[in-house]
Amino acid sequence: MEAELLTVGTELLLGFTLDTNAADIASALSGAGVRVVRKTTVGDDPEAIAEAAGAALERTGLVVVTGGLGPTSDDVTKQAVARLFDAPLELNEDYLAELERRFREYRPDRPMPPSNRGQAEIPRGAVVLPNRRGTAPALWLEGEPGIAVLLPGVPHEMRPLLEEEVVPRLRERVARQDGAVRVSRSRTLRTTGITESGLQGALTELEAGLDPVTLAYLPQGIGVDLRLTAWSLPEAEAESELARAGDLLIPALGAHYYGDGDADLAAVVLERLRLRGRGCGLAVAESCTGGLIGARLTAVPGASDVFLGGVVCYADESKTRDLDVPEALRHQHGAVSEAVALAMARGVAGRFGADAAVAVTGVAGPAGGTPERPVGTVWLAARLGGVERAVQRRFPGGRREVRRHAAQAALDLLRRLADEG
Amino acid sequence: MEAELLTVGTELLLGFTLDTNAADIASALSGAGVRVVRKTTVGDDPEAIAEAAGAALERTGLVVVTGGLGPTSDDVTKQAVARLFDAPLELNEDYLAELERRFREYRPDRPMPPSNRGQAEIPRGAVVLPNRRGTAPALWLEGEPGIAVLLPGVPHEMRPLLEEEVVPRLRERVARQDGAVRVSRSRTLRTTGITESGLQGALTELEAGLDPVTLAYLPQGIGVDLRLTAWSLPEAEAESELARAGDLLIPALGAHYYGDGDADLAAVVLERLRLRGRGCGLAVAESCTGGLIGARLTAVPGASDVFLGGVVCYADESKTRDLDVPEALRHQHGAVSEAVALAMARGVAGRFGADAAVAVTGVAGPAGGTPERPVGTVWLAARLGGVERAVQRRFPGGRREVRRHAAQAALDLLRRLADEG
Repeated sequence: MEAELLTVGTELLLGFTLDTNAADIASALSGAGVRVVRKTTVGDDPEAIAEAAGAALERTGLVVVTGGLGPTSDDVTKQAVARLFDAPLELNEDYLAELERRFREYRPDRPMPPSNRGQAEIPRGAVVLPNRRGTAPALWLEGEPGIAVLLPGVPHEMRPLLEEEVVPRLRERVARQDGAVRVSRSRTLRTTGITESGLQGALTELEAGLDPVTLAYLPQGIGVDLRLTAWSLPEAEAESELARAGDLLIPALGAHYYGDGDADLAAVVLERLRLRGRGCGLAVAESCTGGLIGARLTAVPGASDVFLGGVVCYADESKTRDLDVPEALRHQHGAVSEAVALAMARGVAGRFGADAAVAVTGVAGPAGGTPERPVGTVWLAARLGGVERAVQRRFPGGRREVRRHAAQAALDLLRRLADEG
Repeated sequence: MEAELLTVGTELLLGFTLDTNAADIASALSGAGVRVVRKTTVGDDPEAIAEAAGAALERTGLVVVTGGLGPTSDDVTKQAVARLFDAPLELNEDYLAELERRFREYRPDRPMPPSNRGQAEIPRGAVVLPNRRGTAPALWLEGEPGIAVLLPGVPHEMRPLLEEEVVPRLRERVARQDGAVRVSRSRTLRTTGITESGLQGALTELEAGLDPVTLAYLPQGIGVDLRLTAWSLPEAEAESELARAGDLLIPALGAHYYGDGDADLAAVVLERLRLRGRGCGLAVAESCTGGLIGARLTAVPGASDVFLGGVVCYADESKTRDLDVPEALRHQHGAVSEAVALAMARGVAGRFGADAAVAVTGVAGPAGGTPERPVGTVWLAARLGGVERAVQRRFPGGRREVRRHAAQAALDLLRRLADEG
């Protein structure tokens, strides 16, 4: 089963916006056994949309379209594709009622703007796929030209629709059409604290044993992901080959490996602390990261059973006033020092009554570097059940990279400390 | 002058790789006065490449192709495009000598691999654009079908070739063809606190007056960007039309407009406070955002002259212990309430000796919602020079969206308060 993708949006042709939707859809379709053979992008122009969607349907019989489903006048995708299916737009009363209900819920003080009413016009015969995160209807059109799936262009609306509505329907089609589904499946092993070439050195002799699975190194800045891919195999075989490949590599990765897929290091840390049992609270003291570590930890649903809070001690006085870091220590060693990092961790653990803590103090740049402590120098500290560790690192890149690296390394220091115990 | 882009690579169709090349080329061409009307991606398949390049040439007479120029057997772009121009491949002795020289320079111990020899085969009549960063030749083919520009797919090789070789040649063509160079220029107005349809309601009567500038609504989740584009005009005229369009729209946007281009709301807030003069420090008290606001503020270089720090009071006791929120207030009104949000802002301002403060307390979900305070309910508070404001909002979406919205809305509340004064 083959498909083409069509992304719609003049902003994509101006190069301002990276087309992440096309990549997400391509990846989801490959995993469902559908082979994407072409991606096309056109502007918000009904003729171009109809021509490109029509050509894609002629070549493959299946086109997934994103973008141009909003309420404004430049949103013309629905109209253009409906024409190919000779499906006139008709007001869908149920959908209109649902839209009005949602507007009332969020803005009871204001009526729904008239432009949103047009979003309830649905091509005759189309199936509406429920979009719980936005007002644009996702649509499944099926008819003589083939199948056209229309998805909103806003990524956080598009992705759940793709996973929950489109992929299951496509898998069912593929199974019906091909008898057995052949899929390309990937598995990602996440590492941190080791470079791409360091990993390559550790794994090079194992690579031959992976066949038919292929291995790609994907540096992510704050770690390197290893992507294992089993290409075009029956599903069970693809899964077992990936499992075998993981079993081969993971022992060689040691403590650098922290999880699979989209495992997040913050979630891994929370889970490790949760396993220590009741009352192992975590607090953070952040200087140059300014809240990044807290933000990463609290991005994890259910963080509150472990994470207690923290102090962002951006001004140096705050390190003393709020975290009991002796002023003499700051003057003697400097704010970016082992002594201060350890004292910050101790101070925040004490203040929050936390069994676990991390602390970061460093020079994120662009200003503030000195010959002894150049931009990128960071001291990290972690403590857990009275045991403490501190480590100095020097991270490459600009302010953004230094801060991201520092937050990741601080979480990793605590993870490794938890794994030792 | 119009053009199409063709990016070649099976990895792009599997969705593992974001097509940054297409965005970079689109942006460079727009700036050179060439209007990109379509982007297409196909796999490493000579038939598909020839078909797509041929169709692009037929529609516009100019196609820029990247990828598939490497030394391996799946690199077939050059062969496929050369066929369209009836240009047989011929060994280019000069290019071969150059390649051999470079291999000797970097790896004097090894001969050039035989597979690289094929890279010196050049379609008859093609101009070789010198690629100093890699071995793949960039090519300019011109003939009866039009112009095809072939660029390597490795981004750090492609970008300098684009800027140094392709753009100057295209600008010259555009000038020759159109008399003067005509460019497409864009300007972005950033708004927050108003929906896409709300904006459209406010601007709909002004849209006609924008001509020849076009307006696109780009919802970014935490705000809506308005992209104004002047298409295919002499450079000075494009700039003045964009300035005029901005002057027309900005008054209608009122307080929702906070900056141009990639203006960041956190940076805007810091700048507003900086303008109030020495000593206007800012502190933040974050519950459900867990550090996001601090992270956004400290992402801005030089934040330290205004931002002092903050408290992440994730556990409720911390609101009382660290921010002096009376326990009775929490029990009487609940942790997610106007009284607690205001008390948090007051508490953190007092602790840090800050003239300005923001505070957030809310239900980010997925758990923790109640009928009176469903998931997405957030109380925001801001204070500045003794004046305080609090506002309740209910944000749609999951945990991630609620938190991002809450951080943005808190910063925005303080910005509006600063603009009032």
